[in-house]
Amino acid sequence: MIRVSVFYPATEGASFDHDYYREQHVPLAARTWSPVSVEIDKGVDGPHVAAVHLMFDSLDALQAAMAADGTADVLADVANYTTIAPVLQTSEIVG
Amino acid sequence: MIRVSVFYPATEGASFDHDYYREQHVPLAARTWSPVSVEIDKGVDGPHVAAVHLMFDSLDALQAAMAADGTADVLADVANYTTIAPVLQTSEIVG
Repeated sequence: MIRVSVFYPATEGASFDHDYYREQHVPLAARTWSPVSVEIDKGVDGPHVAAVHLMFDSLDALQAAMAADGTADVLADVANYTTIAPVLQTSEIVG
Repeated sequence: MIRVSVFYPATEGASFDHDYYREQHVPLAARTWSPVSVEIDKGVDGPHVAAVHLMFDSLDALQAAMAADGTADVLADVANYTTIAPVLQTSEIVG
């Protein structure tokens, strides 16, 4: 299983709308990319104010998802909830 | 649900023994802290070479786990698989 994580590092002077993220943005991303599952994190302690984890069956499935027509709309929607530059991580879940 | 993530950022000149991590270290941590579930990531692309995610029912359950006698042994074991300084994140899973 492949995990794509998107982290939002705490950034001086930046805002993050957790409600919009949970209720609007992540559902849009999930409709667009159809991951196997999705988990949304709200930071309590540590470097990130928020994160999302999207699981895919394989790297091929991930690449096919990112090629979807709606990907540009998902990326354009980021400006509606934060000014933080997201950090992407792709990992294989090995245990 | 509370997620504790431990990230290992790619670090110039540092090593990381993924086999030891998966087969020895994370099982030791799981026996010591009894999280609800555990997932181990091996980095494919992005800033981290590896990560683990430990889920707990609550912040109280997390604090109780960290107070376990074996916590010092888990931390001392890090030197057996990496020279990377781990980064900790605690988050609430909100969706």
